Amino acid sequence: MKLKIHKDRLMEALQTTQKGMASKNTIPHLNGFYLETTEEETLSIITYDLEMGIKYYLPTEIIEQGSVVVPSKFFDIIRKLPEDQVTISLNKENFLVSVESGQAFFEIKGLDPQEYPKLPKIKENNYFSLPEIALRKMIYQTSFAVSKEETKPAFTGVLFKFSSNENSDKIDMIATDSYRLAWRNGKIVNDDGIEGEYIVPEKALSQLQKVVGEEDTLVKLYLSNGYFYCETENVRLFSKLIDEQFPNLDQVIPQNYQTKVVVDTKILQNSMERASLLASEGSNNIVKLNITEDNLEITSNSPHTGKLKEDLSIYKEGDNLSIALNSKFVIEVLKVLEEDQVELEFTGSYSPMIIRPKDNSQYFHLILPVRAF
Amino acid sequence: MKLKIHKDRLMEALQTTQKGMASKNTIPHLNGFYLETTEEETLSIITYDLEMGIKYYLPTEIIEQGSVVVPSKFFDIIRKLPEDQVTISLNKENFLVSVESGQAFFEIKGLDPQEYPKLPKIKENNYFSLPEIALRKMIYQTSFAVSKEETKPAFTGVLFKFSSNENSDKIDMIATDSYRLAWRNGKIVNDDGIEGEYIVPEKALSQLQKVVGEEDTLVKLYLSNGYFYCETENVRLFSKLIDEQFPNLDQVIPQNYQTKVVVDTKILQNSMERASLLASEGSNNIVKLNITEDNLEITSNSPHTGKLKEDLSIYKEGDNLSIALNSKFVIEVLKVLEEDQVELEFTGSYSPMIIRPKDNSQYFHLILPVRAF
Repeated sequence: MKLKIHKDRLMEALQTTQKGMASKNTIPHLNGFYLETTEEETLSIITYDLEMGIKYYLPTEIIEQGSVVVPSKFFDIIRKLPEDQVTISLNKENFLVSVESGQAFFEIKGLDPQEYPKLPKIKENNYFSLPEIALRKMIYQTSFAVSKEETKPAFTGVLFKFSSNENSDKIDMIATDSYRLAWRNGKIVNDDGIEGEYIVPEKALSQLQKVVGEEDTLVKLYLSNGYFYCETENVRLFSKLIDEQFPNLDQVIPQNYQTKVVVDTKILQNSMERASLLASEGSNNIVKLNITEDNLEITSNSPHTGKLKEDLSIYKEGDNLSIALNSKFVIEVLKVLEEDQVELEFTGSYSPMIIRPKDNSQYFHLILPVRAF
Repeated sequence: MKLKIHKDRLMEALQTTQKGMASKNTIPHLNGFYLETTEEETLSIITYDLEMGIKYYLPTEIIEQGSVVVPSKFFDIIRKLPEDQVTISLNKENFLVSVESGQAFFEIKGLDPQEYPKLPKIKENNYFSLPEIALRKMIYQTSFAVSKEETKPAFTGVLFKFSSNENSDKIDMIATDSYRLAWRNGKIVNDDGIEGEYIVPEKALSQLQKVVGEEDTLVKLYLSNGYFYCETENVRLFSKLIDEQFPNLDQVIPQNYQTKVVVDTKILQNSMERASLLASEGSNNIVKLNITEDNLEITSNSPHTGKLKEDLSIYKEGDNLSIALNSKFVIEVLKVLEEDQVELEFTGSYSPMIIRPKDNSQYFHLILPVRAF
């Protein structure tokens, strides 16, 4: 293997693939980058942790074909190179990789590429597509609500649920940690007619969010053989699906409300952030809302530090109501909404509340109240 | 106590004083800000950890005099306030502090100011002065070399050593961790005729470096009663001196050299940073220099990862020489030098080396070689 490459382009590829590298795997090959040249004047860089993998295609000048696994430190070395022009060459006998750039000459101990774990065979059919920018936003608005606890594996991923009517094909993305739930609906192109439900690990989606662009370009997402697979211009990302049953949450979601409030998103977010400074420590960041006529009173009380009281003017429909909420949950959802105003819907002090952007039926967020009264 | 104040100016004062707050002191008062108004329409904010203290004077509109200790969370609360105008008032009976800004009303539990530990009485004489910008640079170029080990208390501070000749008064600032030594000399105004040696804790100097400006304004530094005390426009900073003997290091410093090299500062720094990526792990970041004629060869070798070789063109006087150095020490000193070129002076492979900026006799840095050949 011998090739010439531009430092910045190589760095970009390494930065993207680094996220897929196993951090503490006992197979030393997985703690490195798998480099492989192809006949098409391309260097491919692969990282894989046996669950998820990232492959990056980098067009470059190939002088001699070959493959090798380089340790993660390769990244730091490339970053520090003195010149833009980099020549990388491999001694096939001992897997020593030379890196030359200006007056600097590195020799890095590589590993036998034959011993790199085999990547899974993913049958490339059964795909749907949607614009990159829409995918990005759908992940952003749902994935933060997944459970961080490995004890509920189904909840550590985002549910992809397909539906269609005569007009269009759609996907629901749903994430929950059992205390709150984020739901997002979006249009897709589903020529293969994918049906049913799939749970994609949050880890894979957060990487995907980083590699998809801000464009309207359609991106293909494959779901087959227990794997999720996605193709963008330079990057292939794949991950095992979570092989669990996602519970039916329809009955949890209230279909009507007793009280509805319309309030400015940013003002509510700032108030909740102040209130959470004095939210009861160690007990779910409790902040209380007291809704009366055109006033939303927000209070919090920390036994050790002090308390906060704040009044926001609101538009209200329905009954007066008091409710206690985990302020962290409220802040997190307000942060991912772009709309200036939000609607809060309540069915009682001990029933789930719904936050949704005003005049947008594609998103809602459910939060269970805290029993604090 | 009651006062009106601008949020940003209060934030600036809290940010500066926060650094002086005891982080885990068993006296709860020390984990807070001592607030006190004065007749001169000023709010003073004090933090103190029994070793070092910071006092900030903030001109403002005082409606009623008073004092109280507020917990560290006061900082977060002020930062999140909705409006620039802030009204702070104290209920003397129960030390509850109200903070009002726009629609937000906070009530914070304060502590009895009478129980705040007494600040030391520092006799305000015995001072010297120098320009703020010079002081800042002197601290910057020396303090990083102090010892991080508490077992050598004298080495955890920077030595201030006074001298004078018929032309001017001078100070030497010296820091060492016993493997390297940073020495900086500067002109001072010493009307009080301060003599002798004082060791100022690195912690106090790093705070001082943050509060002094970039100006030519003279700043006064007091050394008296076992204390160091400094006055800038808004800030008073004081600290106990380290009550230890600083060893005489004169004989450690070589007075002549066998080999002298002149090299570009930035080029050497970058090369050393690359070399340190492959410096022997777990053994003092060893990088080897091999000096022959007009060439400086830099090599490093990590048994697990690989090696680096790099050649720099240099100006050389004297003998050829090989030496092994801790690359971290070399990088740290090159970073604090502003001059384009540095001189490296060697007296042998196992003798201390000197790095000094070219054409500047106010600074030098000594590094002990590693015995690696």
